[in-house]
Order: sequence, then C-alpha cells, then structure tokens
Amino acid sequence: MYDLIVIGGGPAGTTAAIYGKRQKLKTLLITKDFQGQIGKKPIPIQNWPGLNEISGPDLMSNFKNHLKNLDIKIKESTIKEINKKDNIFKVKTKKEEYESKTVVIASGSDPRPLEVPGEKEYIGKGVSYCAICDGSVYQDENVAVVGGGDAGLETALYLKDIANKIYILEFMNELKAKDSLKETIKNLDNTEVLTGVKLKEIKGDKFVSSIIYQERKGKAEKELEVEGVFVQIGYQPATAFVNKLVEFNKKDEIKVDPWTGATKTKGLYAAGDVTNVKYNQLIIAAGMGATAALSVFHYLNE
Amino acid sequence: MYDLIVIGGGPAGTTAAIYGKRQKLKTLLITKDFQGQIGKKPIPIQNWPGLNEISGPDLMSNFKNHLKNLDIKIKESTIKEINKKDNIFKVKTKKEEYESKTVVIASGSDPRPLEVPGEKEYIGKGVSYCAICDGSVYQDENVAVVGGGDAGLETALYLKDIANKIYILEFMNELKAKDSLKETIKNLDNTEVLTGVKLKEIKGDKFVSSIIYQERKGKAEKELEVEGVFVQIGYQPATAFVNKLVEFNKKDEIKVDPWTGATKTKGLYAAGDVTNVKYNQLIIAAGMGATAALSVFHYLNE
Repeated sequence: MYDLIVIGGGPAGTTAAIYGKRQKLKTLLITKDFQGQIGKKPIPIQNWPGLNEISGPDLMSNFKNHLKNLDIKIKESTIKEINKKDNIFKVKTKKEEYESKTVVIASGSDPRPLEVPGEKEYIGKGVSYCAICDGSVYQDENVAVVGGGDAGLETALYLKDIANKIYILEFMNELKAKDSLKETIKNLDNTEVLTGVKLKEIKGDKFVSSIIYQERKGKAEKELEVEGVFVQIGYQPATAFVNKLVEFNKKDEIKVDPWTGATKTKGLYAAGDVTNVKYNQLIIAAGMGATAALSVFHYLNE
Repeated sequence: MYDLIVIGGGPAGTTAAIYGKRQKLKTLLITKDFQGQIGKKPIPIQNWPGLNEISGPDLMSNFKNHLKNLDIKIKESTIKEINKKDNIFKVKTKKEEYESKTVVIASGSDPRPLEVPGEKEYIGKGVSYCAICDGSVYQDENVAVVGGGDAGLETALYLKDIANKIYILEFMNELKAKDSLKETIKNLDNTEVLTGVKLKEIKGDKFVSSIIYQERKGKAEKELEVEGVFVQIGYQPATAFVNKLVEFNKKDEIKVDPWTGATKTKGLYAAGDVTNVKYNQLIIAAGMGATAALSVFHYLNE
C-alpha cells in the first residue's frame, strides 16, 4: 500500500514525486516513458529558470536523476484504469495492480492524430510525431510536416539539415507560429510552405511513399512524394485511463482546483497539461506537481 | 515606456522577466536585491526539480545569469509606489520613475519582525533575520534563535558549527518544525530548546549583549547572555508600495486569479509569495511568474 502514486514522468509528475518523497510519503511513480513532450522537443529549452539553454532530453535526464537520487520507486508501464473503493485507490497497469491512499494524475498530453487513412498503418514506418526521436532516419529524403504552428515549424527547423526537402502543410490560410519562427523558416532554401491545404491520405507500400492533400480553395487534390510525415497538429490530454472519478472540461482536460490540484474525488489530484491549466508550460506544470503533492500531504494528515 | 515591469528578483520575478523577454516584450526587472528568501536559506535546496541539491545563493546566481544571458534590464532599487493613469503604470523608486503598460508584482515576503524593544535598534548590531548572511560573525559566541518552526531549526543547524551555544526560543509549548529537523536538533550538544517562552526585550550597549524572555507559565522573566539574535518567526508579504490597485486577503496577501495571476486592476498581475497562493514554494512561485508574464502577453495583444 502506497501513500502516493504519481502517474506521469514529466515535469508535473517528477515534481509531485520529489515533493511526496521528501515529505516521507511512500511514493510510487508510474510512467509510460521518460520522454513526454519535453524529451521530444526538437529545439533547446530556454525558459527553464536558471538554465540558459538545455535540450529536452537533458532536462528529462536531470529530472530522472533527481528521482533516482531520492530513491523514488519508478515503474515504467501504461495505466489501464484507476478505481476507488473504501477510500483506497487501485491503479491497474497492463500486468499489475497497485494500491494507494492518494493519486496524482500528471500524465500530460499526447500528440493529436490526423485521423486520415494510412496514418495508423504507417506509424514507425514513415509516420512520426517526434522529429527528435525519428528525424535522423530521413537523411537526404523528402518529408512533410503537418501543422504550421510553433511545434510544426520547430520540427521543420530540426529537420532542415537532415532532410533533402521539407514540405510544411497548414490547414489555415496562414501559418500560426510566432513571427520569429516564420521568419527563420522563410529564409531556408529547402523548405516549402503550403497553406490552406488538408491532408487526405498517407500512402505507401511497406513504408510511406507519398501523401495526398487537397487545396481547400478549388478542392484540387495533389500528391507529394515524401518518405516521412511528421504530424504536429497539437496535443490532447492523456486521460484514456481516467473514468468517472474526475470531471472534464470541453477540451477533455481534468478540472482541478487551481490552488490545490484537487479533483472532484477526495484523495485524487491532478497537475500539469492533463488539467484545465490555462498555459501549458514546463515550469507551470512543475509548480502544479508540487502543489498536488503538498495537498496530498495535508489530506493524509487530516 | 516599457511593455512590462517586473517587481522582484526571486523565482517568480525572474521567471516572469524571462518569459516577458522571450516574448519580445520590452522588459525591466526592479528588485531591491537578488537574495530574497532563497539567497538567505541556511540549508541546501533539494526540491528544485532536476537539481539533487543546490545552495540558495547558487540557485539565485543561476537565475541572475539567465536574466543577464537574455539581456534583461535590471535595476536594483526599492519600490516606493505604483500608480496607474490613462492605462499607463508609473512605478516609483527612491530616485526615479518608470512607465510601463503592465506590471507584475513578485516582491515576495519579508521576515516578520518580533516588535520588541531593542529589535530595530540592534539590526546589524546583533539582530539578524538571516544566518547565512550574518552567521559567520558569531564564531564561538552565544546566540538565540527566535522561532521553533522549520526556518528556526534550519537556522540553528546552520549555526551549530559556528556559535558556541545556541538557544532556540519558541512561543508555543512545543517546536513546530518537522520531525526530522527536531530529531537532528535534539542530538546536538550545543543547542538548548526553550518552549512556551516569549521574548520581551533585546538589550545591549553598542551591540546586543542579552535578551529578556518570559516563561508563559508562571510569568517568570529570565535573562540570557547572547551576542546574536536570529529572528525566524515567519514572513509577511512585501506590499508596502502597493496601494488601492489590488485587493488583499486577511493575511495581507494580494488576491490573484490563480489561472492568470490577474489582480483587480487591468494590466497589473502578481505572482509568488506576495499573493494568496496556498503553498509558498520556489517552484510554485516560478510557475506563477510564467503564468503572469503569459497573461501580460495576451493582455497586450488584445
């Protein structure tokens, strides 16, 4: 029986576990991996206070070291379900079941899929949601980045010295990224921006070989020969395992009390991007992790 | 004319300034110093995510480096007043006046004074609120630490290898610090704990030479010969310069909207320990600094 199970190994989950352990709570952290959004970030992080610049994977590795240094028990696994019975939470992974007096959900968010034919089929065979994980495979090949926001343009930037040619596809009539990124992309000679287009299909044989997109104005369908497709159209809260224990807002985010991290179920807290927090930022998520763990401590001592 | 003036150089202020500057806002940070609570913390920090252990001054120095690396303009000065007229804030220091479209107040909190005779008179002459700043002066001397919470006991721990004898005075009938600290203090041979006592007066000539305390039970007054008095009875929000532009709660903390950092005045935000945040923690304050700066950005773009 644990005092606290933290679900998620990003900044919110890591901080919650650190705070839990330092308050002498018997703490278990369960995470599917130690990558999350940060570990996959294609450009260096410059807004973690106190560090001028650090790569996403390096920051994640610092977090992991901190957990190990505090001897926090870690289980790398995917959560299937959480239930509460007689004031005890049962947290089920694929193979095991853990019991705890409290739970902090800090599972973050997952890349939003395109939901077009070929996408699921070619995951790992040309379709990727993470340039930093998979980008190096596309040396001198043509790739498409779907999504013209910050994440899409950062992905294109990451790929600029690897790929031969990079197509950036944006559904809206102009890129949504910040001006500085747009400017940088405009000055690259191996990048082509296509706005007002809708990706219709990802095609291939064993691996991806092309994409079909439609021009929204005129409806013309066109084909581009690409070996890689990087999908960067946003994120959705990772809440598949959460049931009626919490309340969701319209964006499927878990509603929490902002000062405590409390959900509608006693003993169940949430922190970071999985919640209805207004701004999705590393340092804000970390702060919420601390908040949730301190609330756990008070709840257990009441 | 600035886009953003940040008041305070702790984790909340630093993070707000980093976020402001990275959003291309013309940003000025005004702080009375770069110490604050962190710079004065007598024991290492172990709960800043990603750093197993760091001294308070080192973490502050990392923050300051980050500000300098981003070329953020810093003014070391004390704020006297903030006013708003025609949608423009006027921020007055002792000697100058600055104008800005928005302000983030992140001035943190100051040590709470005892308010006993002799306290003000002997500041810097035996009375201190910061062992890490002033402790080394008391080599082989007798000192008193007033306050038996975490901060008081941490102060005693810091002084244990410097001072000859350390008296810890606590008003309540038992120490309020966490168990692990109490245990550590109990095992020191140069520390004496006095509970249920009230400090009445600090006496001296040019420098502190003794304190008078009263036993709450029985009312007996006693004198202890000490050369140093470290006051650690808590903190109060540093809001002397804030006027009717904000609303306060009963603890004199600035009331903010927890998801945005907004105060009751448009364009005026607050973050960290100066606000009605539930838990006063570095990482939570930093997250609130980011939140406030992102709200500033949205406000300026509306």
